Amino acid sequence: MIQARVTVTLKNGVLDPQGKAIEGALGTLGFDGVGQVRQGKVFDIEMDGADKESARKKLSDMCEKLLANTVIEDYAVDIL
Amino acid sequence: MIQARVTVTLKNGVLDPQGKAIEGALGTLGFDGVGQVRQGKVFDIEMDGADKESARKKLSDMCEKLLANTVIEDYAVDIL
Repeated sequence: MIQARVTVTLKNGVLDPQGKAIEGALGTLGFDGVGQVRQGKVFDIEMDGADKESARKKLSDMCEKLLANTVIEDYAVDIL
Repeated sequence: MIQARVTVTLKNGVLDPQGKAIEGALGTLGFDGVGQVRQGKVFDIEMDGADKESARKKLSDMCEKLLANTVIEDYAVDIL
């Protein structure tokens, strides 16, 4: 059993209104010194088998096909 | 300038319909050997200053107050 974490984040330059809203809310709550905030997604995925390299390849494939919109998002695959 | 990543994930035992939907979609796309999928959120936050310990404390505070619902979610703070 392989436990993996896939992190999907917006590419630089892509507008992130949700991140901007969080920036504003943190300011309202009195947190100062907060710069840019960007929000992304994380997927914790369990996979059968023990071959980490084949799992990594499969997970990249999942990102390309379903988990990320590669026009505006980057993804990173970590095997834990 | 400190760059931090906050990861917010559902606690074990909390239902995750979005994760279940992704599990189903991966199956439909022909990915076999996929076990449980859980979705979470990630926040990339820039903070002024250079004191990592005080930044970590401030970020935990932000999680408690805004970024995470600690009834159903866990959070992790990483200073990059």
